[in-house]
Amino acid sequence: MKSVFSYDSVELSENGKELVIIDQSLLPQQEKFIHLTTAEQIFYAITLLKVRGAPAIGIAAVLGVAMCMNRFKTRKMDQFEKEFLRVKRYLSISRPTAVNLSWALDRMERCFYETKLQYEELPEQEAIEKIKKELTAEARSIKLEDVKMCLSIAENGCSILPNNAGILTYCNAGHLAVSRYGTALGPIYYAQQQGMMPKVYACETRPLLQGSRLTAFELMKAGVDVTLICDNMASIVMSQGKIDVVLFGCDRIAANGDVANKIGTSGLAILAKHYGIPCYTLGPTSSIDFNCKTGSDIVIEERPSYEVTDMYFGKTMAPQGIKVYNPAFDITPAEFISGIVTEKGIFKPSEIKKLKKLI
Amino acid sequence: MKSVFSYDSVELSENGKELVIIDQSLLPQQEKFIHLTTAEQIFYAITLLKVRGAPAIGIAAVLGVAMCMNRFKTRKMDQFEKEFLRVKRYLSISRPTAVNLSWALDRMERCFYETKLQYEELPEQEAIEKIKKELTAEARSIKLEDVKMCLSIAENGCSILPNNAGILTYCNAGHLAVSRYGTALGPIYYAQQQGMMPKVYACETRPLLQGSRLTAFELMKAGVDVTLICDNMASIVMSQGKIDVVLFGCDRIAANGDVANKIGTSGLAILAKHYGIPCYTLGPTSSIDFNCKTGSDIVIEERPSYEVTDMYFGKTMAPQGIKVYNPAFDITPAEFISGIVTEKGIFKPSEIKKLKKLI
Repeated sequence: MKSVFSYDSVELSENGKELVIIDQSLLPQQEKFIHLTTAEQIFYAITLLKVRGAPAIGIAAVLGVAMCMNRFKTRKMDQFEKEFLRVKRYLSISRPTAVNLSWALDRMERCFYETKLQYEELPEQEAIEKIKKELTAEARSIKLEDVKMCLSIAENGCSILPNNAGILTYCNAGHLAVSRYGTALGPIYYAQQQGMMPKVYACETRPLLQGSRLTAFELMKAGVDVTLICDNMASIVMSQGKIDVVLFGCDRIAANGDVANKIGTSGLAILAKHYGIPCYTLGPTSSIDFNCKTGSDIVIEERPSYEVTDMYFGKTMAPQGIKVYNPAFDITPAEFISGIVTEKGIFKPSEIKKLKKLI
Repeated sequence: MKSVFSYDSVELSENGKELVIIDQSLLPQQEKFIHLTTAEQIFYAITLLKVRGAPAIGIAAVLGVAMCMNRFKTRKMDQFEKEFLRVKRYLSISRPTAVNLSWALDRMERCFYETKLQYEELPEQEAIEKIKKELTAEARSIKLEDVKMCLSIAENGCSILPNNAGILTYCNAGHLAVSRYGTALGPIYYAQQQGMMPKVYACETRPLLQGSRLTAFELMKAGVDVTLICDNMASIVMSQGKIDVVLFGCDRIAANGDVANKIGTSGLAILAKHYGIPCYTLGPTSSIDFNCKTGSDIVIEERPSYEVTDMYFGKTMAPQGIKVYNPAFDITPAEFISGIVTEKGIFKPSEIKKLKKLI
C-alpha cells in the first residue's frame, strides 16, 4: 500500500541522535516537525499529546531510548546501564494506559542485556558502542514491524468492509497514531486505494478533538469522503442507516476481550449493538495484555479539568471553579466487540486464548 | 419555591415597550441583559441563541409580539392587523422544532381576533388600544402560566428522586431555558431546597455547550453539587453506578411518545436503558404535539458547520473545507422514555391519549 503521507509520524534521524515527530498538538492548522534530543523532551511531548496514539507512543519511546543512549557520553558500563534504566523507567510512566509502551520498552531492555552479555569480554567502551548500535537497530526494527503490522491490519480489516461502506470511527487511530497507515484507519486507506469508496463519519472526540483535528485531517488529505460529527451525533447517524460498521483502535485489551480505548468508546459500542451495527477494535496483538484478566483491572487515567473547560477555547467555557470529571479512557465490555482485527487475523473476544498460542 | 435567580430570563418592561433578556450567548463569562425593541432583534436573538430553550423562546415570542404591537403607531385597524400577522408569522419561523412557539403565538392570534370582535363597534383607534392592552395581558399571562407550570413540574419530578440522587442532565432545561425554575432542572432545585442533596452530572452538550455554559452555571449559582462531563463520558459515569436517574427537557413530543430534544438525547436514553437507569423527559403539556403522530414526522433542524468547527474555539479545530453534519435535535423513541413529567403529573408515553383528555 502506498503511504498516505510523505513522512512518518515518528522518525529517528539517520545519525540516531534526534527523534523527529510531527507536533500533533498543532494540527490541523500547522504541520510542524520538532526535533527531540532528551528523555525529558520526549516525556513532555507524550504528556502534552504532541505525540499520541498507543503505537506511536511506544515507537517514540523506543526510538527515544536509542537516541538518548546514542547521545550519552561515558566510558563506564555501570554508568551507561544506570542511565539506560533511568530513561527506560522514566519514559514508561509517561502514559499509564498504553500497554505497547511497556511492551516495547521491555524489548529494549532485553536487547540491552543480551548485547551486554554477548560482548562482556570486550573493553567497556567498545561494548557500550555495540550496545548503542544494537539498541538503535532494535528500536528501528520495532518500528518496521509496526509498519508491517499496520499493513496486515489494514488488509484484514478491509475484508469485512462492503463497497461504499458507511464507517463510523472515533478518536484517531490513523497514520498519526502509529508509525504509518494507522490501525482503525488502515482498512479505510486500503479500501480507498482499492476503489471501494468508503464513506467515513469521524466523531470529533471531546475533549481533545483528535477526531476533528487529526482523523478528519488525515482522511481528507488522503482524499477519503469524510464527514465530521460531534460525539453526541453518533446515535442519529446510526439510526439513519448511514453506518455499516464501527471501527476504533485500542489502548489495551484484557484477556477476556474487554477493550480500553478513548473515553466514549463504550457508549458508541453499546449504541452500535442497539442499532445492529458490527463494532470492531483494531490493533496489533501487542495491545493484548494477557496479565490483565478483565477490563476492571485496567487503571483509567484521569486528566486535568482544564482540558474540558478551557483547552482550544477562546475563553473559559464553564463557570469558575466548576468540578470536572475527565477520564481519558473507558472500558468496552467484550460482549459489545464483534471482532478484534489484528495483524494475525480477526478474532472474537472469546478467541483471545487461541491468539495467545499464535504469538 | 424560592426563585434561584433575582431575574427572569425573559421579561417585558413595565410599560410593555421593551423585551429584556439575559444574553445567554455571553454566559458564563458575562451576565448581560439586552433590551429588544423590534421583531427583527427578537428573531436575531432567537437565531443566535441569545435566548434559547423551547419555553423561553415561546415566551420571548409572545412578549415580543405584544411589545412590537405596543410600539406600532397607526390609526388604521387593517394596518394594525397586517403588522400583527407579519410579526407573528416572522417570529414563528425563527426556530422550526419548538412546538411551544407556534402554540403560544396561536394563542396571541386568538386573543387578537377575539378582542377585535369584542370591540368592533368602537372607533378603530380605540379598538387598537384595547387590542394592545389585551395582547400585553395575554402574553404576560402565558408567562405566568409557564412559571406555575414549572413549579408543578418541579414538584412532580421531585417525587421520583431518592435522597442524594445521582442525576444526569443534558443541555439546559433550567431557569435560563424557561421563564423561571426550569423544566428538567426544576426538580433538582426543588430537591435542593428540601435538603435532599442531589448530585448532578451535567453533560457539556456539543456543539453549543449549553451544559457547561448554562446548566453548570445555574446549578453552581444555586449551590447544587454539580460535576461537568463531556457528552462521551455519560457511559462511564452510568457504568460506575453514579447515576440514579436521567432528566432532560423536550422540544416536542409526538402523539406516540417519541421525544424530540437536543441532539444526543437519544444516545443517552439508549445508554440509560442498557444500564437499567430510568430516563425522564420533563416539559409542559404544551410540548405535546397531538397532530404529530410519531417522531419521524418531526423536521430536524440542521445548523451551520461553523458551530462544530469554529464556534467558541480560539482557532478552527478541523481542516479547511471539511464536510460537517450538524443536526440540532434527535428523536428518542418512546420505548426509551420511562415517563413524561408534566405540570399535570407523570405519564408513560403510552398514556399520552389519556393526557389529551386532561388538557
